[in-house]
Amino acid sequence: MTDRSPFEIVARLTVEERASLTSGLDFWHTEPVARENIPSIMLTDGPHGVRKQTAEGDHLGLHSSVPATCFPPAVALGCSFDPELLERVGAALGAEARALQVGVLLGPGINIKRSPLCGRNFEYLSEDPLLSGVLGAALVHGMQSQGVGASLKHFAANNQETDRMRVSADIDPRPLREIYLRAFERVVRDAQPWTVMCSYNRINGVYSSRNPWLLTDVLRGEWGFEGLVVSDWGAVDDRVASLAAGLDLEMPSTGGRTDAEIVAAVRAGTVDESVLDTAAARVIELVQKAVAASDPGATFDADAHHALAREVAAQSIVLLRNENDLLPLATDANIAVIGELARTPRYQGAGSSRIEPTRLDNALDEIRSLSGRDVPFAAGYALDGSDSAELVDEAVKRAADADIAVVFLGVPAELESEGFDRDDLELPQRQTALLDAVLTANPNVVVVLSNGGVVRLSGFADRVPAIVEGWLLGQAGGGAVADVLYGHANPSGRLAETVPIRLEDTPAHTNFPGEHGHVRYGEGLFVGYRSYDARRLDVSFPFGHGLSYTTFEYSDAAVESDGDLTVHVTVTNTGGRAGAEVVQVYAGAPGSSVARAPRELKGFTKVRLDSGESQRVAVSIRRDDLAYWDTRVDSWVVEGGTYSIDIGASSRDIRQTLTVDMTGDAVRIPLTMESSLGELFQNPAAAEIVLQAFGSLGGEVGVDESVLKMAASMPLGRLAGFAPGVESEQIQQLLDVVNQQE
Amino acid sequence: MTDRSPFEIVARLTVEERASLTSGLDFWHTEPVARENIPSIMLTDGPHGVRKQTAEGDHLGLHSSVPATCFPPAVALGCSFDPELLERVGAALGAEARALQVGVLLGPGINIKRSPLCGRNFEYLSEDPLLSGVLGAALVHGMQSQGVGASLKHFAANNQETDRMRVSADIDPRPLREIYLRAFERVVRDAQPWTVMCSYNRINGVYSSRNPWLLTDVLRGEWGFEGLVVSDWGAVDDRVASLAAGLDLEMPSTGGRTDAEIVAAVRAGTVDESVLDTAAARVIELVQKAVAASDPGATFDADAHHALAREVAAQSIVLLRNENDLLPLATDANIAVIGELARTPRYQGAGSSRIEPTRLDNALDEIRSLSGRDVPFAAGYALDGSDSAELVDEAVKRAADADIAVVFLGVPAELESEGFDRDDLELPQRQTALLDAVLTANPNVVVVLSNGGVVRLSGFADRVPAIVEGWLLGQAGGGAVADVLYGHANPSGRLAETVPIRLEDTPAHTNFPGEHGHVRYGEGLFVGYRSYDARRLDVSFPFGHGLSYTTFEYSDAAVESDGDLTVHVTVTNTGGRAGAEVVQVYAGAPGSSVARAPRELKGFTKVRLDSGESQRVAVSIRRDDLAYWDTRVDSWVVEGGTYSIDIGASSRDIRQTLTVDMTGDAVRIPLTMESSLGELFQNPAAAEIVLQAFGSLGGEVGVDESVLKMAASMPLGRLAGFAPGVESEQIQQLLDVVNQQE
Repeated sequence: MTDRSPFEIVARLTVEERASLTSGLDFWHTEPVARENIPSIMLTDGPHGVRKQTAEGDHLGLHSSVPATCFPPAVALGCSFDPELLERVGAALGAEARALQVGVLLGPGINIKRSPLCGRNFEYLSEDPLLSGVLGAALVHGMQSQGVGASLKHFAANNQETDRMRVSADIDPRPLREIYLRAFERVVRDAQPWTVMCSYNRINGVYSSRNPWLLTDVLRGEWGFEGLVVSDWGAVDDRVASLAAGLDLEMPSTGGRTDAEIVAAVRAGTVDESVLDTAAARVIELVQKAVAASDPGATFDADAHHALAREVAAQSIVLLRNENDLLPLATDANIAVIGELARTPRYQGAGSSRIEPTRLDNALDEIRSLSGRDVPFAAGYALDGSDSAELVDEAVKRAADADIAVVFLGVPAELESEGFDRDDLELPQRQTALLDAVLTANPNVVVVLSNGGVVRLSGFADRVPAIVEGWLLGQAGGGAVADVLYGHANPSGRLAETVPIRLEDTPAHTNFPGEHGHVRYGEGLFVGYRSYDARRLDVSFPFGHGLSYTTFEYSDAAVESDGDLTVHVTVTNTGGRAGAEVVQVYAGAPGSSVARAPRELKGFTKVRLDSGESQRVAVSIRRDDLAYWDTRVDSWVVEGGTYSIDIGASSRDIRQTLTVDMTGDAVRIPLTMESSLGELFQNPAAAEIVLQAFGSLGGEVGVDESVLKMAASMPLGRLAGFAPGVESEQIQQLLDVVNQQE
Repeated sequence: MTDRSPFEIVARLTVEERASLTSGLDFWHTEPVARENIPSIMLTDGPHGVRKQTAEGDHLGLHSSVPATCFPPAVALGCSFDPELLERVGAALGAEARALQVGVLLGPGINIKRSPLCGRNFEYLSEDPLLSGVLGAALVHGMQSQGVGASLKHFAANNQETDRMRVSADIDPRPLREIYLRAFERVVRDAQPWTVMCSYNRINGVYSSRNPWLLTDVLRGEWGFEGLVVSDWGAVDDRVASLAAGLDLEMPSTGGRTDAEIVAAVRAGTVDESVLDTAAARVIELVQKAVAASDPGATFDADAHHALAREVAAQSIVLLRNENDLLPLATDANIAVIGELARTPRYQGAGSSRIEPTRLDNALDEIRSLSGRDVPFAAGYALDGSDSAELVDEAVKRAADADIAVVFLGVPAELESEGFDRDDLELPQRQTALLDAVLTANPNVVVVLSNGGVVRLSGFADRVPAIVEGWLLGQAGGGAVADVLYGHANPSGRLAETVPIRLEDTPAHTNFPGEHGHVRYGEGLFVGYRSYDARRLDVSFPFGHGLSYTTFEYSDAAVESDGDLTVHVTVTNTGGRAGAEVVQVYAGAPGSSVARAPRELKGFTKVRLDSGESQRVAVSIRRDDLAYWDTRVDSWVVEGGTYSIDIGASSRDIRQTLTVDMTGDAVRIPLTMESSLGELFQNPAAAEIVLQAFGSLGGEVGVDESVLKMAASMPLGRLAGFAPGVESEQIQQLLDVVNQQE
């Protein structure tokens, strides 16, 4: 069937067959049409591994699955700041999917981390849309390089789990465009995922699954998406409306019920048959692509993928703090390992993304392996709640006997899951109490964290000399942690999300998670570091932060402009060992006429340097990425003027600052009766024409400056009431003249 | 004409005459109809004095006016926390209006101070709707007791000056109801102002002047408003639409242009004639009321009103800080007065509310008068910008020679006006530099502030032992300041708005003043102290704060409930002199199912006590004031449960805490296919019915708790996709059964 065009095939099908193609056969497969040799393909969960169910499939789709490599979840991947690495992860995911006869892997998830409380943040990359977009595109490129389709999700504005299947994300146009759609736009434009998955929620009152503006006008019309739109599982509220809106494939099966609705609608003429044909053709095209790349004999190298998972995990770990170079540990350091999570790792989150790993490392074994020593261990706490004073006492004793205590803390698995949000940012009180007890016995503490969402660190961050943020690191995370602790890997992860001091500081605090079916994105553009910077609020650790075992210096920054910008800077490894630095480039528009964050990430690159080595790196900034969404003309506009370019090692560790002048896009807003006096006076030529005419008409506009300032907001159409002798018609005629002159 | 009913009169008029009645004769008067003996009445600016123009009227309405008492503007009145006092002010305003043949005085302004930057905040009472409502009603009661109509303004959500004639205040239902309409609702219900003035701006896209929901459904339908709606001057965008929406009177005159539009619309049948008749009848009724109360021989006692203005100003001054009892000053204290504002007072703001005072006191003269000494004075700075080092040097010298330096600082007049907003919260740098210089010479400094909007005090508040917040105090403010400084008046003002530490801390910071015609009220309910409390943010001085020269203790709090609540508490003056305490009662609903501020002002009373005196005070809380606006049922709902009752001397100086259990209003939300599994399980009886039925249907819902938590947000109508064997129709039938059982 791959030699015929999808529309040729569609033309040979009955309406019922066409409709059947646009919904699932069961929980995981597309519907086949045997008489036309259209096979079924499988779509199954990612995103950080292949979750192919073993059973025929329970009906919440959560039964056990065949083993596959559990790579680090997105929360960790985002901190790698390394698109090349993520392309390799994507390729490995694709290879496993192909080996498991999966045509489409449901990922990556690139929703913005609006609040650290979102229960599914571990599946998402960042609070920043550029970082999410660049890394998301890399994952898609990698997966699709193996002939396996990606499913970019959850489109769009699915930023919480509370009431996720109904809640309306009420978002103004600029944040919707500049924050919540921006990463999707980049991935679609740069990587053309085979599929995009619509989200459960509503946006400004309209379900994503039936939103023609979202699924057709923006996704296809503006961004040029060529693939297929699939529903999130169970996201369809009204199948016929969804089809008309641009949803091509409903998942899972509804047993034919909604197919029949489509057939009826086509027959009744309420949906144009061509709409159904297009959707069916897109399904066929997807099946064709999957079939063309499928290889019944394909396998994957589980060992190589485990090794990759370890490498990636090590690159994603963020060294938050390292006073007096407590880390890396010497191989023969007299350490004690404390915390059940060192032995029983948390390495992924709960819900549809839970992978059955091919192997599972734990940090304790890997530490013992790398050190070659029978490092003492104490659990300190139990994961099942059966804590005891004995556990704490033993841990304190071990800590006291060691030179350095490595304490593993983390968020309990049952608190981090798809389907619900967290209530707070706290580590379990019994864990922080353990830490306090250990610190009393031995201040030389390294804390290693396991958490899918950000936790509050302000309770101990200033008392613990070294903190390793280990997120959820996948099946090889234990080894990666050991690699970092002993310096086999030099940490190079950077925070893809801010660690705030308190939950109350988070931008969405008073607006999350909404109530009664609505959540207002009241913080607007000011998400993540954009908000902390705009409010000049201290944070525990800023976006982009991450330490290394070496040090880097920046020098000789310069910016080149040929429409797009290229920022050049020399980075020198001034420390004693090889390492990687993430050079971050932020831009600001201090004189902007619209609200802007003080700085926004516009480009970055990860550069690996030997001790003493220098390299001149170039970071590209697309002109488009300097644009804001202008609601007056409903399009992206680059403002003319001077932009600040901040080059740094984090959003708050700016090392070099430049400015660059940009020529703005022409935005033509004609003067109308709704234009204000102030807007008129912004155009001196127009103002003169109008004022002269007013003078000759006998109108009184010759008022002093303070009155003019007070009256600047008056619409021209209201002038008549304040300037007798001036008629609205006369003003309109003047405006016509003015508008033609420009 | 007063002996006939308005509708009888209307019936005798031509359509043209009826239309003419519904717009102005000129800038300030209603249109007369001579042949029916309908006279013209005058409406003119307040709100804190009568601004009756002397000239025929320029066309921005800003020419000089006849002298009238300039009472303290609302920014000060709000801090009195004293409705009895404000009723006296209202009566004085009414008496002056009547004496000046003014039928309607345009005030009070009760818009909520959403941002301290709003240029017109000096005309508004508070950041809190209850305080604004109670005080606004008192002013209306007072004015109307003299047979002069009030005009409650600006209805509604006119919370900024930037783009005020076009901007759409985009506000969600709960903040719109609970914050921005709430004070209007109280004043309308409690005081029935003769008129309400619609605002310039739009609300959620619709101009207030043509918003039928606002002007008719809510104002009249829900609140029972019986008066007339007048436009703000020039607020009408579409006269015919406005008339249909419920705008009775357009001001100022449009020279007949828009009257003709109405006549044409009535003739064409696009507006029902009865709508015009109703508006015309309301104008006639207003004229009748004004005429009935008019008294050509009326006068007012300018001396008595000046004395009242002084008394009110003294009651409104807020003593923010008074370390080591630096205040009050002894009569023979060796002080120096510094700052041009002591000699040249700022006593009101700019724009339409600017009153031509009958007299004007300044603090310097009054200080000299009260002390009987030729107190040394140095200007320190010039108000015209002609500052010099000599001015500073002289001030420092005076300060050094004195025991105490009283330094007058304030916001320059040109920065605080109707028509535009401030850019920041700063005092002029030259003034703070002067203060620094003075402090170096003499640390015993009393700062006296003159400002219409809140200024940032965090730059010096901890270094200056005494700070007197003098706001804008009207024509007798100079005397009032002297009264407070020397203890002739014991300060009893309390902050009606929070003084934040930084502009960046203010709740609307990243959402103010919007752009391109829209401003998003993204902070929602969390305005003023509601936000600082919810974000647990430190402030310079909290809402409700204000010191006295004596001290008060609270004891034996109790709460009584008979539907409404009455809070009783004993207050004892434990200090050495008579004084007044503002007992503030806040409520919270810690277990609420919806977003709530930690505490909200629900009642207050000002109690005057001699030294050593105790009094048991009672503060009433209406049950309605505990309600939230429930968007599911579009009405006010009192939640059942336990409420916290905090009784204190400020929003952050809580002295007694109680709880009270309230029976909730019955809110019946039927289960539908859009209801979630979680909502179903909140109703155990319903859940059992559904689960039993599912079991018998063969559906699989028997899943473990963690899966249930994850699936709780699934709408019942989507279950079919996840539980084969269960049809939507069957679920609907079950819900019908369940809903009938309740």
